[in-house]
Amino acid sequence: MTLALPLAYSIGDPAGIGPEMAAAAWAVRHTESLPPFFVIGSARVIEEAARRRGLDVPVCAVKAPDEVADCFADALPVLDLADLDYTPGEPDDAGASLALTALGVATGLVRSGAAAALVTGPIAKSRLARVGFDFPGQTEFVADACGIAPENAVMMLAGPSLRVVPITVHVALRDVPELLTIELIRNRAAITAAALVRDFGIVRPRLAVAGLNPHAGEDGRMGSEEAEIVAPAVVLLQAAGIAVSGPLPPDTMFHAEARERYDVAICMYHDQALIPLKALDFDQGVNVTLGLPIIRTSPDHGTAFGIAGTDTARVGPTIAALRMAGECAARRTLV
Amino acid sequence: MTLALPLAYSIGDPAGIGPEMAAAAWAVRHTESLPPFFVIGSARVIEEAARRRGLDVPVCAVKAPDEVADCFADALPVLDLADLDYTPGEPDDAGASLALTALGVATGLVRSGAAAALVTGPIAKSRLARVGFDFPGQTEFVADACGIAPENAVMMLAGPSLRVVPITVHVALRDVPELLTIELIRNRAAITAAALVRDFGIVRPRLAVAGLNPHAGEDGRMGSEEAEIVAPAVVLLQAAGIAVSGPLPPDTMFHAEARERYDVAICMYHDQALIPLKALDFDQGVNVTLGLPIIRTSPDHGTAFGIAGTDTARVGPTIAALRMAGECAARRTLV
Repeated sequence: MTLALPLAYSIGDPAGIGPEMAAAAWAVRHTESLPPFFVIGSARVIEEAARRRGLDVPVCAVKAPDEVADCFADALPVLDLADLDYTPGEPDDAGASLALTALGVATGLVRSGAAAALVTGPIAKSRLARVGFDFPGQTEFVADACGIAPENAVMMLAGPSLRVVPITVHVALRDVPELLTIELIRNRAAITAAALVRDFGIVRPRLAVAGLNPHAGEDGRMGSEEAEIVAPAVVLLQAAGIAVSGPLPPDTMFHAEARERYDVAICMYHDQALIPLKALDFDQGVNVTLGLPIIRTSPDHGTAFGIAGTDTARVGPTIAALRMAGECAARRTLV
Repeated sequence: MTLALPLAYSIGDPAGIGPEMAAAAWAVRHTESLPPFFVIGSARVIEEAARRRGLDVPVCAVKAPDEVADCFADALPVLDLADLDYTPGEPDDAGASLALTALGVATGLVRSGAAAALVTGPIAKSRLARVGFDFPGQTEFVADACGIAPENAVMMLAGPSLRVVPITVHVALRDVPELLTIELIRNRAAITAAALVRDFGIVRPRLAVAGLNPHAGEDGRMGSEEAEIVAPAVVLLQAAGIAVSGPLPPDTMFHAEARERYDVAICMYHDQALIPLKALDFDQGVNVTLGLPIIRTSPDHGTAFGIAGTDTARVGPTIAALRMAGECAARRTLV
């Protein structure tokens, strides 16, 4: 599968590891067979981040995505939005503004059809909030820019061993039981199933829905949410023709043999999904937003201000995010 | 390390997989270098369970543990308490009574010093409750028989990749936040640290304490239990000279590199502990009870009535439980 259009990589917070990850990924573009991509951000930041990492990464300035193909083989194409100093580990408002602008421009280019898919470098929400960003995260920003209600943008984490969708995400564990509803589970699972068909090429995706409680409640002896919320959602999904099993005991659904029985695990809370994903695929998890009119992925890590500019951060997650974005975009193009 | 005394294996519910696991483990005693053990239960059940599994397992009746050494090489020693029919998958009160009696006798033999350690075959609590068993599980029964308060008997699950201690166990997830206290965490972690020294030979065990919430609460943005409960417990443990870190973000503490930094993960709830353990070491997890005057282990699975007698159940967990019991008992003998 080859792409006619390049991927758009938004730089993220320029004081984080987003810039060096773009440079490091470009440096291995051939050995990793990466699809062409370009950075929306700052040429100077990219050049300095590459140098700090000891990488020889020439940058070519592009004005539009259609210039990317000509230069990607020899240089990292950058759509230059700001001439900033590179100050790794020292975020400031100018950097946050660049991150926000880059995210908006990159999303717009993909939304307009000029770029194949969006790969977002990491931002610090609290930083961006200071310059006018009022979303819980990039996912909601991108959904909004695409005209999709936030509840219909679904976060999936995908690694080589496992795909997981957490139904609730960044909330305290004590709030999880009250937040779970039949409709929330049904809606997110249905969006997931449709995306696995369209973007991942799985003809008939098999969903495994976890229970909330130990042993999936053991017939109500340890919690009633399985009977009251999870099982009814499973019934609705089955009635809609989706191949779904559950509620399953959470602790026995993630070993190798169990994982062969499904394509994605629908999890009730953040750590139920993220603990097995990171235990198995720590360095290779990709965050994919399902349910959007565009493809959007991101590496599954934060800005890592503490190690930015030190040649420590691993490029594996960014490589995985770029590759997955390219594969998903190619599948949509084929349809 | 060799043991002067044999291990006592209580048969568990005779309609479950406990009998066939004993026979299957004995059949590989040489290749797996298992320490001598004997079954407390029913000779006829063991013989028939072995036959059903296609195993040639001669049984030798013993009256006391000191007869085990002479016959273990050539036959599986059984302390015969009841002449029952083998009815795999069909539990009844006679079988439950045998399971309960066998557990009591086996515990008594170990407690008295006649056997080296206790390995318990799986029971069905609801079945045993019908014949007078009024404990939440075998762990509490054994603790009581040893004169230990149930809150001081700590369950640890141990596999080749990971050891975990769930602070709360078989309770609904929504009840977990209210059950966690500083003292509960401190007490269980301290018992764990002492047991890792005494029974596992770890001179200075390193404990990693998980947070309760995503990202360990992210400075209170997603839950306050880390600041109010977990962190104060960690401070108390450190003040007691224990090498302990935390509260750690639960999702990033179980990958290979993170696991190298600790000897046991202290987890806040069942699935936080059991999901990573079973994802990584599904077939090899051993349940060890810490804080007792005796060594007690069990394979980390239930009666599996549905597959009992079908030659399906894997003997790996029983082998691991026998081996770990032998190793821990040998260390106590050495002290």
